[in-house]
Amino acid sequence: MDNSDNNKKSINDFGKFGLINHLTKNVKTINKTTIKGIGDDSAVIDSGKNLTLVSTDLLLEGIHFNLIYTPLKHLGYKAVIRAISDIYAMNGTPSQVMIALGISSKFGLDHVEDLYEGIALACEKYNVDLAGGDITSSLTGMTIGVTAIGTVEKKNLVKRDGAKANDLICVTGDFGAAFMGLQLLERERKLFVKEKVEQPDLSGFEYVIGRQLKPEIPVSTLIELKNESILPTSMIDVTDGLASDLLHICRLSDTGCRIFYSKVPIDYETIRVAEEFNIDQMIPALNGGEDYELLFTVPLEMVDKIRTIQSIKVIGHMTSSGSGNFIVGDDGSEVEITAQGWKD
Amino acid sequence: MDNSDNNKKSINDFGKFGLINHLTKNVKTINKTTIKGIGDDSAVIDSGKNLTLVSTDLLLEGIHFNLIYTPLKHLGYKAVIRAISDIYAMNGTPSQVMIALGISSKFGLDHVEDLYEGIALACEKYNVDLAGGDITSSLTGMTIGVTAIGTVEKKNLVKRDGAKANDLICVTGDFGAAFMGLQLLERERKLFVKEKVEQPDLSGFEYVIGRQLKPEIPVSTLIELKNESILPTSMIDVTDGLASDLLHICRLSDTGCRIFYSKVPIDYETIRVAEEFNIDQMIPALNGGEDYELLFTVPLEMVDKIRTIQSIKVIGHMTSSGSGNFIVGDDGSEVEITAQGWKD
Repeated sequence: MDNSDNNKKSINDFGKFGLINHLTKNVKTINKTTIKGIGDDSAVIDSGKNLTLVSTDLLLEGIHFNLIYTPLKHLGYKAVIRAISDIYAMNGTPSQVMIALGISSKFGLDHVEDLYEGIALACEKYNVDLAGGDITSSLTGMTIGVTAIGTVEKKNLVKRDGAKANDLICVTGDFGAAFMGLQLLERERKLFVKEKVEQPDLSGFEYVIGRQLKPEIPVSTLIELKNESILPTSMIDVTDGLASDLLHICRLSDTGCRIFYSKVPIDYETIRVAEEFNIDQMIPALNGGEDYELLFTVPLEMVDKIRTIQSIKVIGHMTSSGSGNFIVGDDGSEVEITAQGWKD
Repeated sequence: MDNSDNNKKSINDFGKFGLINHLTKNVKTINKTTIKGIGDDSAVIDSGKNLTLVSTDLLLEGIHFNLIYTPLKHLGYKAVIRAISDIYAMNGTPSQVMIALGISSKFGLDHVEDLYEGIALACEKYNVDLAGGDITSSLTGMTIGVTAIGTVEKKNLVKRDGAKANDLICVTGDFGAAFMGLQLLERERKLFVKEKVEQPDLSGFEYVIGRQLKPEIPVSTLIELKNESILPTSMIDVTDGLASDLLHICRLSDTGCRIFYSKVPIDYETIRVAEEFNIDQMIPALNGGEDYELLFTVPLEMVDKIRTIQSIKVIGHMTSSGSGNFIVGDDGSEVEITAQGWKD
């Protein structure tokens, strides 16, 4: 690899997605079964009649979860959700998950049992088999590697790169709740550490905390889309944040986008908690992440059909390449959409 | 989950494999595509004409690798080898790998580039596509999740549970070299820390160090087996150690085994390094691990055919269930084979 042009660059100059692109730019595809490689929710492998989808995730203690406020059963549940969500986001059906667990000596049998109880619960709910796994010791804390496997008929595969100008931008559910739930849990943790408050009072916040600790996938919407013979032109699951994930689709589809401030669904409880924290409600809604909702595009002609599906909200439309990515306020003002965190 | 009978048990009472069995004992298989679940090298998924194999591994800094003496390029290479080795061990052909990387801020762009250079090199050598991946930040060190995907024709699948009494126990390559290579590297590290020795003198130890840092998979032997129409009755890749991996096959196949002390292949350099460390050469050979050789069984009738393949050594035979697992010395003495580390 020629590093001469990288001498002055650091990881932060690239950002997460730029970094993966940079590292894999010379990678050639050898096997004809490799349909879709890097850059989508899952790897797509031609296995004859259908396509096999494989996604893999790494959950690190202190980064992706904090065991002080995440019960292990919920963590196991969420680890499965996170992995199978990538399969659903390609319009596939998950069928198996595999868990690779790294645990330090601070964990006992009951901890691992709780974790696996959550894993089993999610598997049962989403009709997925636990098809393998490994447990190794770790020096520091807990690491969970989750791999999900699924299938999709070739004609039903939905990738991130198929959106066209004028396509409607659709979402399921609401946004920002999981993020505000995390803020609440984090606040209680600090109170617990500082003032030894034993029983945090989280009543009245069940929705946002539930969204953080036990997310679900809007499978019923995918079924309704299938029943209405609507095949999205692009789709992604919202885990990094609505803004960041929408920008992924725009970048890979080579489109711009316009979404409308007033159309982004936000639950009343999310708004209330955001107010309590003095945060503009659009910040968690656009940049919070971990919503596990679906963001997808459909051709403009589908507008009437889409309106018949209660669980889907149209929040805007795609625009032509180079026309920018904007959120439009009630007064018509346009603000450019940017992704938080690592650069997109 | 009923925990009443576990109150006095700890993780160490179960051992690694017992723990996975315990945690997954209530797991039912839901999907008819799930052929082989927990307990083998890979998950086996029915994808129509062929079977899809998926394996997943977690490599943790300080446990599976030490960056002081593992160049990142080698680490990337080895991560791919480790994952695809599980696919070959089921008589499959790997076609894709996916990498999920967790890195702390101590790593720079050149580090990640080196790692990916090694990944790309292994992919190229073994005709495997890098089909996906993710990079996240971590609090402590480096974590690598590797998922390998492959295929095998249904009739060619080889699992761990098919060995029968009287089957020949066969191996490729030699054993204990990677372990002794690790001991050497570890000794040099200590010298480096204590006495600031800058340039470790490792000349004359190229073989054992190469086996530790850049393992290869005996693919040519698999091809020879195929050419001779020999389908092993069971197979495993030797990563935990010859003893431990042989015991896996015995346990899953419900057989005993007898292997012969003098038949276990050990390289001269391994013996020399073992002597230098005052270790009996059979300790690394039986319990070292990371050999990435293949251990497999074939029916007794295949003995003449097997003898024509230079790269295969017969080290013993399977015995009937309940007759124990023994290594037989030159004087006819029998010693029970036990696995080191976590209990089998």
